[in-house]
Amino acid sequence: MISKNQIKHIQSLHSKKNREEEGLFIIEGIKLVTEFINHQKFVIKEVFATFDFIDNHKSGLISNAISFTEITTEELKKISHLTSPNQVLAVVKSTEQKLDITLLNTSNSLFLDDIRDPGNLGTIIRIADWFGIKQVICSPNSTELYNPKTLQASMGAVLRVNVITMSFEELLAKTKKLPIYGAVLEGENIYTTSLKHGLLVIGNEANGISNEVLKHISHRITIPAANSNGSESLNAANACAIICSEFHRQLTY
Amino acid sequence: MISKNQIKHIQSLHSKKNREEEGLFIIEGIKLVTEFINHQKFVIKEVFATFDFIDNHKSGLISNAISFTEITTEELKKISHLTSPNQVLAVVKSTEQKLDITLLNTSNSLFLDDIRDPGNLGTIIRIADWFGIKQVICSPNSTELYNPKTLQASMGAVLRVNVITMSFEELLAKTKKLPIYGAVLEGENIYTTSLKHGLLVIGNEANGISNEVLKHISHRITIPAANSNGSESLNAANACAIICSEFHRQLTY
Repeated sequence: MISKNQIKHIQSLHSKKNREEEGLFIIEGIKLVTEFINHQKFVIKEVFATFDFIDNHKSGLISNAISFTEITTEELKKISHLTSPNQVLAVVKSTEQKLDITLLNTSNSLFLDDIRDPGNLGTIIRIADWFGIKQVICSPNSTELYNPKTLQASMGAVLRVNVITMSFEELLAKTKKLPIYGAVLEGENIYTTSLKHGLLVIGNEANGISNEVLKHISHRITIPAANSNGSESLNAANACAIICSEFHRQLTY
Repeated sequence: MISKNQIKHIQSLHSKKNREEEGLFIIEGIKLVTEFINHQKFVIKEVFATFDFIDNHKSGLISNAISFTEITTEELKKISHLTSPNQVLAVVKSTEQKLDITLLNTSNSLFLDDIRDPGNLGTIIRIADWFGIKQVICSPNSTELYNPKTLQASMGAVLRVNVITMSFEELLAKTKKLPIYGAVLEGENIYTTSLKHGLLVIGNEANGISNEVLKHISHRITIPAANSNGSESLNAANACAIICSEFHRQLTY
């Protein structure tokens, strides 16, 4: 049983402003919530679930001391942002994630310069996770990590990848001289240039990398198109996938 | 000036059923509509646009004998499916696109086995265009090419890539022995296996390649993850981007 006030409170977390003010966000669905319960990177404030979910996950909820409330499918519909809610919704405390400078200097990291689409941010985190990239740094004007669409698209990768919000200037001040790769439309062919560990910058969906960041790029790299009269660009997440893949190939195989 | 009946008719094309019955679809926005006007792959039935668009594109509309109607921003809002409509909407005749068997046998093609997300289909067409792949064959249960989200995500690549709906069985019957690559979770490492021209199969977002198609795959290929305890998979469009990129690299550089 969920109270009217609780319903109102959870619905209020559908808005970014309230998520930020309260330091809370919501996640949904059996798979994502179960991963959050088991992984313990984030503190779960409360789980609202139908009988089936609670029946199957009671021991995990109890052993992790997570408070939970059984609700009906109708009640779940009221608090969910999904068209087809799936058994469970959890309210989670957001955590400020810290930059690991050693990791920054010894492995690949991503800097997202104003990625605006939550789906793109989520799949980019999933790509990072796939290729063993542990840190994704977002410019302050990028879309929000705790947007439900970002979390859904990341498919749990947010549990294994740290996502840090920081301006490029601030990031630069924290690192020693590191190769800074920027994905641009006219740069070195990624397949034939020799890629090293470094920081990879992905620009905004419509405008690419901003001028303030571009001037610090030490290596401009490009995914060469098959011919010059095709599409003008690739979707930002797809471009990121290809470049991370090529880094992985060159550094591993 | 647009009539109430015209408004109703265009609104009816927001549904797949009506698009299919009428053989019509809609596209929106200055860039996409302009590309459709210039490219002439599809027949434009009518353009509805505000004064600014018509003022800037009158000669192109007249020289291509495209009928157009000036409407107000308010009227555009009524017929648009976008939150922020952008000057113009066009009603276009859908065209059955034919498989080119020579092209199938001499270059890379994609087969999409039940891709359900219109955004994924659209960006996959854009990826194909980037890497010079001229044919994308969709299984009959895949999402619809003429869904506005597919068209928007393809960013005009539908003008340069033929998208054909055909079952895998039917496709097999039309081709001579061709390498058939399938993207699976446990297959040959794409970076170290030698890739040739062939047909590349991308599976459904949740379930991968269906069993009926899987049995015809001659080469199971995989994007190797950096470690075994990360994300279980990549988004279908991102996986497609990486694999097309690796084909392009191996076959070109």
